[in-house]
Amino acid sequence: MSDNKPSVLVVGSVAVDWVITPRAEREESIGGAATFFSMAASYLSDVRLVGVVGDDFPKQGLADLESRGVSLDGLEVNSEGKTFRWKGKYHDNMNGRDTLDTQLGVFEAFDPKLPEHYQDTEYLFLANIVPALQLKVLEQMRTRPKLVGLDSMDLWINIARDDLVNVISKVDVLTINEEEAMLLTGEHNLVKAAKAIRGMGPDSLVIKRGEYGALLFHDEEIFSAPALPLAEVVDPTGAGDSFAGGFMGYLARGVEPTGQNLRTAMIYGSVLASFNVEGFSYDTMKDLSIEKIQARFEQFSRLTDFSRAEL
Amino acid sequence: MSDNKPSVLVVGSVAVDWVITPRAEREESIGGAATFFSMAASYLSDVRLVGVVGDDFPKQGLADLESRGVSLDGLEVNSEGKTFRWKGKYHDNMNGRDTLDTQLGVFEAFDPKLPEHYQDTEYLFLANIVPALQLKVLEQMRTRPKLVGLDSMDLWINIARDDLVNVISKVDVLTINEEEAMLLTGEHNLVKAAKAIRGMGPDSLVIKRGEYGALLFHDEEIFSAPALPLAEVVDPTGAGDSFAGGFMGYLARGVEPTGQNLRTAMIYGSVLASFNVEGFSYDTMKDLSIEKIQARFEQFSRLTDFSRAEL
Repeated sequence: MSDNKPSVLVVGSVAVDWVITPRAEREESIGGAATFFSMAASYLSDVRLVGVVGDDFPKQGLADLESRGVSLDGLEVNSEGKTFRWKGKYHDNMNGRDTLDTQLGVFEAFDPKLPEHYQDTEYLFLANIVPALQLKVLEQMRTRPKLVGLDSMDLWINIARDDLVNVISKVDVLTINEEEAMLLTGEHNLVKAAKAIRGMGPDSLVIKRGEYGALLFHDEEIFSAPALPLAEVVDPTGAGDSFAGGFMGYLARGVEPTGQNLRTAMIYGSVLASFNVEGFSYDTMKDLSIEKIQARFEQFSRLTDFSRAEL
Repeated sequence: MSDNKPSVLVVGSVAVDWVITPRAEREESIGGAATFFSMAASYLSDVRLVGVVGDDFPKQGLADLESRGVSLDGLEVNSEGKTFRWKGKYHDNMNGRDTLDTQLGVFEAFDPKLPEHYQDTEYLFLANIVPALQLKVLEQMRTRPKLVGLDSMDLWINIARDDLVNVISKVDVLTINEEEAMLLTGEHNLVKAAKAIRGMGPDSLVIKRGEYGALLFHDEEIFSAPALPLAEVVDPTGAGDSFAGGFMGYLARGVEPTGQNLRTAMIYGSVLASFNVEGFSYDTMKDLSIEKIQARFEQFSRLTDFSRAEL
């Protein structure tokens, strides 16, 4: 049943969001980490999704994922409850946000089971869910993937730290935001926090900094990926997950995870995140193309280009 | 009396700071925008300083500036008062800070007068002082400099906006921080704020973002300069002024202010700022060399280096 074509498997939330921004609002905005990840990664590799939705999940969401070729064999439809719902309001500068409501619904009892033919997937991304479930997913893999990435959040650092540190010790790349890196380590300095986290196990570490871009700590080096300054940020929801999708999706093409290739992956992540925030939900990720992605990659090249001088 | 060697003239504060950080404190820390600017720029070009100090200014400060070749012909020593003093305390993450005390001293009546032989200087930096005085300095130049840079702060945006907008209209490069750019324009989006500011006059705009680096808006392009992640930030005081010193100091070597050269200047600014924050006052900028500066420039090259891929 296994498939030799390079694929990435993502396990995480599929949700319906109610997003309020300073200038607009969408009440039934399809979201969830696994959704954003899948839409972004779908341009770069095959994607397999494991998650759960309730009986209220919009059919259009399934159709959109399928039209991008995302395998939904691992998406459980639980007709006994409602889809995970999140309601949030962004601040004027679009950076901070307040959560107004969270309804876990069927996500509360989510117990991911990998379809047989997913268990040899070579690239695995454990999106932000309870750390104990992330571990359960990893244990269901028949062969250890070539590369495992993991995301988490402050909630688990606060209430399930031991489980989180345990699963972190088993992955290759951790993606986490700046505040979470400090919370996890108790360090106020990011370089020291990065060192402490890599000491827990992961070879490489991605520190997400929102509109300021992201840092990659690999080998003895640091790589700084900028975010593309945009005149119109419509909805930042899912930026980090789209980043992870671009990042893992590029690596899942089978390139070796060398430092230099991880750097390139960081830029693909940044490219997909920059598209994602230009629209609500994954609107802007429905009709991309390799050409559009490469053109924006070139924008990142120019954004960071400078010449050396002889003094 | 004029001198044809490329030089940069800086007008701004010379101060004694009392700096408190989470791990250390220095009570008599020589500071001031013009001081940090001069120490940084001194490695790249000749520097002329215009400012004022009182009878209490440490002799060592003058000796340090002179040993770096900084011309102090424009530094007024006013024995009727005390030097500008600032006391501040940095937060745990070294980003934010609280001002605990400010004593303007002789700086309150500062009325900059350019020595005759400074009036043809080809590069001028108007560090953060009352906008009306910045304009007075510009009007004292016998010939319009090739390049004029200007810095300001939230205080002047709030209480002297008209004067500030007036002087901004006459300069080539404005350096300002992110929050100030938004305050000045009323825009929450940085790209829109940048457009509005360039509409006021300056060809180019540098948006300073502290530990996240800086953005340069030039021509129809944006350049993102990262900050170097450092394991030990001792004292961020003067980072922006050191940045400006490296930036203007490089341009004052006589390179044309093309977009590409402004980008290179941004990296020299970032290099000098990265050294500056590694010690109190300008400690770390006393014993630099072209070799050390170029080596760190290479670190910035590697920090931002990535390879393109064919998809």
